[in-house]
Amino acid sequence: MIKVVILGGGNVAFHLTTHLLKNSAVKVVQVYNKSIDKIQHFKSDTAITNNLAELKDADIYIIAVADNAIVELSKKLVFKNKLVVHTSGSVAMNELLSISNKGVLYPVQTFSKEQEVDFSTIPICIEASTKKDLKLLETLAKSISKNCHHINSDQRKDIHLAAVFVNNFVNHLYHIGSEICDQNSIPFEILQPLIQETATKIVALIPFEAQTGPAKRKDTETIEKHKAMLTANQQEIYTLLTKSIHKTYGEKL
Amino acid sequence: MIKVVILGGGNVAFHLTTHLLKNSAVKVVQVYNKSIDKIQHFKSDTAITNNLAELKDADIYIIAVADNAIVELSKKLVFKNKLVVHTSGSVAMNELLSISNKGVLYPVQTFSKEQEVDFSTIPICIEASTKKDLKLLETLAKSISKNCHHINSDQRKDIHLAAVFVNNFVNHLYHIGSEICDQNSIPFEILQPLIQETATKIVALIPFEAQTGPAKRKDTETIEKHKAMLTANQQEIYTLLTKSIHKTYGEKL
Repeated sequence: MIKVVILGGGNVAFHLTTHLLKNSAVKVVQVYNKSIDKIQHFKSDTAITNNLAELKDADIYIIAVADNAIVELSKKLVFKNKLVVHTSGSVAMNELLSISNKGVLYPVQTFSKEQEVDFSTIPICIEASTKKDLKLLETLAKSISKNCHHINSDQRKDIHLAAVFVNNFVNHLYHIGSEICDQNSIPFEILQPLIQETATKIVALIPFEAQTGPAKRKDTETIEKHKAMLTANQQEIYTLLTKSIHKTYGEKL
Repeated sequence: MIKVVILGGGNVAFHLTTHLLKNSAVKVVQVYNKSIDKIQHFKSDTAITNNLAELKDADIYIIAVADNAIVELSKKLVFKNKLVVHTSGSVAMNELLSISNKGVLYPVQTFSKEQEVDFSTIPICIEASTKKDLKLLETLAKSISKNCHHINSDQRKDIHLAAVFVNNFVNHLYHIGSEICDQNSIPFEILQPLIQETATKIVALIPFEAQTGPAKRKDTETIEKHKAMLTANQQEIYTLLTKSIHKTYGEKL
């Protein structure tokens, strides 16, 4: 059984802790957070603390705090011969300043406190500085998900960057869609099945092949009509993405 | 029982015909297409023709052809006192040039031939020029889907425009995500659960509230690092969408 301590009280820490407490391959020996209030709900399941000097002995220490707090927290982990990992997509493994061995356990998913998470399908990207640690981390990752990948720090940054496009930027386009609906007294729910289908379609088809719409088919008449209906900001985005689709399919207007 | 003739051989016509043939409230008396080859597979289920002079008697004639072919085809429907509708998001009802009554039956969904469609959840937007026709169209729409809306031609154009953002443009961002993966030997599948979750999240949460990421939290360090990793085209999109997210949340870098 792998003994872990989880450090953090945010969404990733919350869902990871909740999952690992039920995971028979793992024993969560302790949860740490600077503010004890945020981890009170784990009190009946494991030890909790807000004092780094009281950290218990474990095989793996999982730092699951905000990206910009990882380095500072890692500095304060002064024990040796353990494995200290973080869970971030954008922080390189070697940015960890703990004196123990280093690694990364990055779940490629967006977490919100309200929404339940099925970890078994979440891709887990792992990295470690020694073979032995990688094996240990792999055992942990495989106990969490059937979708486990060896990914180095450079690749992980690329995944994080790609995730900005397919998650953050996609959500912003959903927002613009909802703006257009609001401005014209249309319930946004009308677009929900289309949004779900757009996401589902690319499981069977690569996005390059799934592309449809006026930009793809060079329908300049519709494109010009659309532009005239938009606010300046929406129009700028419409124009640039249309141009980019033209470039992608080797066609110029 | 509502008697319908379907005109068209593309994806919408295919899926609509397939569905209506199984719909007990409707009798598909005929399918028309310019090229008979494309509708051969319906031969055993209903009458098929490629000759407009042979169109059978029906209550509703559904034109489900490409947007730019609707007007031309409608001109050729020279019978009176019937209901002629199209299924397009971007064509106004009054663009129909048939001499019968006019209407629209617009399913807000993307259709591909390979993928099966569950019509029962697809929003159907209807419009008609008389109350009687609207009622007939509503009976038809409600026999297809439980999600039926009265939407006028202006609103329908807005829905179609919003759909370009949440479907066409979103798919293009998926494509950029897959480009970044390809360029760095990362399997695109790693992003699939995140893509699905991003789409699912906004069923419970409006997109404005679901927004996360470096742009939202004004993480200039990450934003600059990201930009440096992108091609010129990707960078332009990253910069514009980041700027738009800042505007949306009232923050400037």
